[in-house]
Amino acid sequence: MSDVAKSVGKGLGIGLIGTGYMGKCHALAWNAVASTFGDVARPRLLALAEASAELAHAKAAELGFATATADWRDLVANPDIDVISITTPNRFHAQMAIAALEAGKHVWCEKPMAPGFADALAMQAAWRRSGKVAVLGYNYIQNPAMRLIRKLIGEGTIGVVNHVRLEMDEDFMADRETPFAMRNEASAGYGALDDFAVHPLSLLRFVLGGVAEVFGEMARPYADRPHPDGGRRAIENYDIAMALLRLESGASGLLTVNRAAWGRKGRIQLQIFGEAGTIVFDQERFNEVQLFRREGMEETQGFRTILSAPVHKPYDRFIPAPGHGLGFNDLKVIECRELIGRIRGEEACVLDFDDGIAIERTVHAIADSFAKGGWIKVNA
Amino acid sequence: MSDVAKSVGKGLGIGLIGTGYMGKCHALAWNAVASTFGDVARPRLLALAEASAELAHAKAAELGFATATADWRDLVANPDIDVISITTPNRFHAQMAIAALEAGKHVWCEKPMAPGFADALAMQAAWRRSGKVAVLGYNYIQNPAMRLIRKLIGEGTIGVVNHVRLEMDEDFMADRETPFAMRNEASAGYGALDDFAVHPLSLLRFVLGGVAEVFGEMARPYADRPHPDGGRRAIENYDIAMALLRLESGASGLLTVNRAAWGRKGRIQLQIFGEAGTIVFDQERFNEVQLFRREGMEETQGFRTILSAPVHKPYDRFIPAPGHGLGFNDLKVIECRELIGRIRGEEACVLDFDDGIAIERTVHAIADSFAKGGWIKVNA
Amino acid sequence: MSDVAKSVGKGLGIGLIGTGYMGKCHALAWNAVASTFGDVARPRLLALAEASAELAHAKAAELGFATATADWRDLVANPDIDVISITTPNRFHAQMAIAALEAGKHVWCEKPMAPGFADALAMQAAWRRSGKVAVLGYNYIQNPAMRLIRKLIGEGTIGVVNHVRLEMDEDFMADRETPFAMRNEASAGYGALDDFAVHPLSLLRFVLGGVAEVFGEMARPYADRPHPDGGRRAIENYDIAMALLRLESGASGLLTVNRAAWGRKGRIQLQIFGEAGTIVFDQERFNEVQLFRREGMEETQGFRTILSAPVHKPYDRFIPAPGHGLGFNDLKVIECRELIGRIRGEEACVLDFDDGIAIERTVHAIADSFAKGGWIKVNA
Amino acid sequence: MSDVAKSVGKGLGIGLIGTGYMGKCHALAWNAVASTFGDVARPRLLALAEASAELAHAKAAELGFATATADWRDLVANPDIDVISITTPNRFHAQMAIAALEAGKHVWCEKPMAPGFADALAMQAAWRRSGKVAVLGYNYIQNPAMRLIRKLIGEGTIGVVNHVRLEMDEDFMADRETPFAMRNEASAGYGALDDFAVHPLSLLRFVLGGVAEVFGEMARPYADRPHPDGGRRAIENYDIAMALLRLESGASGLLTVNRAAWGRKGRIQLQIFGEAGTIVFDQERFNEVQLFRREGMEETQGFRTILSAPVHKPYDRFIPAPGHGLGFNDLKVIECRELIGRIRGEEACVLDFDDGIAIERTVHAIADSFAKGGWIKVNA
Repeated sequence: MSDVAKSVGKGLGIGLIGTGYMGKCHALAWNAVASTFGDVARPRLLALAEASAELAHAKAAELGFATATADWRDLVANPDIDVISITTPNRFHAQMAIAALEAGKHVWCEKPMAPGFADALAMQAAWRRSGKVAVLGYNYIQNPAMRLIRKLIGEGTIGVVNHVRLEMDEDFMADRETPFAMRNEASAGYGALDDFAVHPLSLLRFVLGGVAEVFGEMARPYADRPHPDGGRRAIENYDIAMALLRLESGASGLLTVNRAAWGRKGRIQLQIFGEAGTIVFDQERFNEVQLFRREGMEETQGFRTILSAPVHKPYDRFIPAPGHGLGFNDLKVIECRELIGRIRGEEACVLDFDDGIAIERTVHAIADSFAKGGWIKVNA
Repeated sequence: MSDVAKSVGKGLGIGLIGTGYMGKCHALAWNAVASTFGDVARPRLLALAEASAELAHAKAAELGFATATADWRDLVANPDIDVISITTPNRFHAQMAIAALEAGKHVWCEKPMAPGFADALAMQAAWRRSGKVAVLGYNYIQNPAMRLIRKLIGEGTIGVVNHVRLEMDEDFMADRETPFAMRNEASAGYGALDDFAVHPLSLLRFVLGGVAEVFGEMARPYADRPHPDGGRRAIENYDIAMALLRLESGASGLLTVNRAAWGRKGRIQLQIFGEAGTIVFDQERFNEVQLFRREGMEETQGFRTILSAPVHKPYDRFIPAPGHGLGFNDLKVIECRELIGRIRGEEACVLDFDDGIAIERTVHAIADSFAKGGWIKVNA
Repeated sequence: MSDVAKSVGKGLGIGLIGTGYMGKCHALAWNAVASTFGDVARPRLLALAEASAELAHAKAAELGFATATADWRDLVANPDIDVISITTPNRFHAQMAIAALEAGKHVWCEKPMAPGFADALAMQAAWRRSGKVAVLGYNYIQNPAMRLIRKLIGEGTIGVVNHVRLEMDEDFMADRETPFAMRNEASAGYGALDDFAVHPLSLLRFVLGGVAEVFGEMARPYADRPHPDGGRRAIENYDIAMALLRLESGASGLLTVNRAAWGRKGRIQLQIFGEAGTIVFDQERFNEVQLFRREGMEETQGFRTILSAPVHKPYDRFIPAPGHGLGFNDLKVIECRELIGRIRGEEACVLDFDDGIAIERTVHAIADSFAKGGWIKVNA
Repeated sequence: MSDVAKSVGKGLGIGLIGTGYMGKCHALAWNAVASTFGDVARPRLLALAEASAELAHAKAAELGFATATADWRDLVANPDIDVISITTPNRFHAQMAIAALEAGKHVWCEKPMAPGFADALAMQAAWRRSGKVAVLGYNYIQNPAMRLIRKLIGEGTIGVVNHVRLEMDEDFMADRETPFAMRNEASAGYGALDDFAVHPLSLLRFVLGGVAEVFGEMARPYADRPHPDGGRRAIENYDIAMALLRLESGASGLLTVNRAAWGRKGRIQLQIFGEAGTIVFDQERFNEVQLFRREGMEETQGFRTILSAPVHKPYDRFIPAPGHGLGFNDLKVIECRELIGRIRGEEACVLDFDDGIAIERTVHAIADSFAKGGWIKVNA
């Protein structure tokens, strides 16, 4: 029986900050990426940081990290660590990412970059100075079905795209009796616009490009919510947001997001209309793409349901048979592989801090337009 | 063997102007309404008017009318005629409807009322003066599934509605090589906004009510089309229109229509979000309603597909078994029965000229907003 | 104004026996066929027969027939009547059809031909002697979507068919507390096998051909039902039937029918597997055909949903726009047009008494196989 | 920074034999189970066996195992190994499982147990003697949606089940020009019956129980395939199999499998009919359950689509938000956790060698029935 350890190429040294849902997702991805893809050395899970030493220790044991700390700066200072996963609440992203980049680490940071745009710009600047890789956790773009959509559009399968519709809906704020919480305060941001809009906008950017001009509108399904201390308190931001879009490509579009949409659980619907066909996608069935092409006999034209399959890379690295279905967490494993690819200097499919800035600029422009009541240029 | 004719209650005397698709639909409805419903006397199909005497005669034979004429004023002058169906191109509606109403006829007029709003207002005024019944051919509201939706909303099944999304798409202008035609000229109107928007707006009005304020946007999928005389000619109106809506009820919404949407054939999708549930409807599967209600155990909640059934009146007058499916033309038969009911003074489910004005006012407000770049109040 | 009556070609003289659901359907079809198709003279609705003179008279007024009678033989004796629609309970079909054919009438008879196979054979013999047209009311085959399926198979779009699956389900016997009734007695026949199997078998025959050999199985979801007189009474026949099929073409298949299938309202699902593709159809969405073809790039292969459209004849006679949807009753209008075509000596798409015998022979073979426990040849 | 290794409870020692698709799946599961569930010690991946030392070494590096060997008996002999994953071709299962069990190891063996029933019985006997845990890799039962179905049935949500339909279809043998291979020889087994039937039967067993009696039928879509050496060679087994079922519970059913079904990629459809409702499931959309319940107002009854959610345990261990979707490989992680639970003496949701025998006995009975042409009792 041969001992394997010595022969393994030295994998990247990994540090993880945060162990909420996204932290767990990153950890699962770091654990799985080598086994799944078979073409990268197994990452070395060196250190995990959490708010308390106790939690850090417990989570490190659970997630397979060798050491634990209550001080995330320990990771930044650790010379063996090559990449730092940042999965803390958004308001901590900027300081952590900037410190990591300045210490020469690559950064894998959850989206959005930061609640305030100035912080996001500072992150971008630090990244540009660093020469390191900085990747945002826009995992929906990693879906092989989404890559198929990008490929189809790129190859002209539906011709020049002239119109898009983007919707994102969940129902975690749909119950009007959900108590008033910090997320309902104005200081927590715009509401659904912050929570959701970056996701469909990331998909739009990935498959089609950026937005030139927006007109925004926001709405409150409910005026108030019960306050934990008794009585009701007025909601200060918006559980619904809408925007008319003029894309850089010249296409028209609209975006609408709703976090009070009963029955919608993880819906991100894209409808993409082109001069030769239409593509429809719904994240709730994300192993499927709907494609209509104006071709062949009219009598047999129709929307076809394409099931994800090994032919749609890198689905094949997970399952050799078609139609068996990837899971949401698998998208993070793909993202992890792309990050490693980017670090290795390969062509990689990621959204970096420049992309992040473009997406967040669009979000802020929508809010700005809503405040001013007119069209706003995103890059003005 | 008994002779039936003498015993039959004298049915309404009917005149029909126009025999295009909607004319045929009216004729089929007049032929079928008594057999289908069994509670109205068979209408007497007295006279049909078409552009030429020859066509009128041939169509009268085909559609079961007793006499034919090339002059629609013959119908207005005929004292035996009680109701006139007006199914000509929109630009003729006003003069015909006004003449018929002034002659004491009831009017069943296809939508929209008129290309120009002044004409529509004149029709409304003539109707109000006449004391007669005037019904617009908004047949989509006659769908038992749509009545179910109205009933569910009315009974509070999904609670107070706070957000709606309306889409209508077809693809008859999707081919960029379809030759330039009159419909692409500015003089033909706004484009998709005129062609389509009244339909979803009629459904919205029927199930929920009116629109208070709009912000409009229009777009051209293609800049030009081949001109029959050679070369290409710039398209002057818009195959796509979008609008943000603020409803009279306080709900937010959006509307988008596209007559260049490849693969969409008769799609009118409604998404209606309420405080206790969500309703989704798609005209391409118009015998189905999707309903989500927040009730019962969370583990078995989900959107349910309700198939039209005898319990959804008046489906039962067509088919005694559930799930067998009404057809598009059946909706016109229901509309015909409602029209008769309105004439008989019964509670009836129709959109009259007041409703028509409200709908068309909304359309014009969207166009106006697009021109001005700001929100427009519909009733300003 | 010209008088139309004199100029109309003399249409067929029609008699109708029975005014239950199917009787109403026939009447609606006779009223609509000329207006819908525009290429046949308007039928003259001469006489209607019902069980009582009073009902006959009332229904004649409702359905547009000129005379009414309580004696169906009056219709047979009426020299002006060309076609007799037979829509009475199945046990009366044989005597009526035979009398009508012997009197030189064409016959349009609802399916199945007769509860007993000997009666069905006698009908077939009378028909062959008569030289007249006899058409069975298998209206599901008249669906333009079903004709598309037949055309696709005929043209080899999915290659040689090697396997089929047929299911038909409704839920009108699903409630175990539905009182015991005549239909649950052995004397009423096999149960679901009689009620349903002819429908999918008619579709199979229409698109693919006949069945050579069967193995049958039947089952009772419930052992007994409450008896109206108190207590419970054992159910004597079967609400579920299944059969393995060996088709004349060599393809394999299976058939299963269930009249106690909660939630299924009018489901007839066909799955047809061929060497180059697969076709799936569900009557509950009968304006759609699902088609998979092994062609083109693998990455964009998938089942496509084809919506019924004018290109699928004769959908265009009802609606000039695609995707608007035919209704169940429209299928009877098409059947009526085909019947007239057959009478006029045109190529027509109908199932006649020979087809009916082949279908009913298959049903009886399934029952026979169930009784004997072995494979049965249908034509043995 | 604290060192984690010492504090971690000693996890199970794992050996893996085989690194094809299922071997990779086991490895991914062993790597992920602790991070995903958070309530088990991280397994120690000790040794991997493959056909050659070189491959074993490479795969061990990839999949995270500490040592590698070309002799699987090294794993059986290793006192630190607690559990052996057996993922080799089926014909090796018996000797490996028996050796492992006899050496006091727990066994996680891919399905089916063995090509020959005698071997399966020997495995069962060895397992019973051993007192160890033996779990079969029927991962489809681990789907939270499937557990929901079992729960709903168990709680009587659809009442007593009286009828089931099971279908499993893929298209990897649908191309008639796929060259003749070993799998087409009679010595390779029955064909689709072996490949597929155990899967729906495992689901049936899991949610409802066993099969008492069967009637089988098999069919060949194609008579022959091109032989690699030229010419064509007759196919010796069957790409399609069907069976009528009489369940132990008294319910009726049918099963059909087809490995030549164009367009079907991973379809396993269950239709389960009960006295109070119906459940439908399709593996191609395995994050959804369709449920119809006869309850409430008839006008809002319909099949509801339930999306997998945290409330459906253990979905919540993967994703805290509903509707985001598990992947096929996640099912193996759940299976791994159940296996550990069974080893720890907890209530666990697995199919063991007794279940495996019952399933495989059913498969052999179907083949036997086909050979003999009559009904066969499964436990005769």
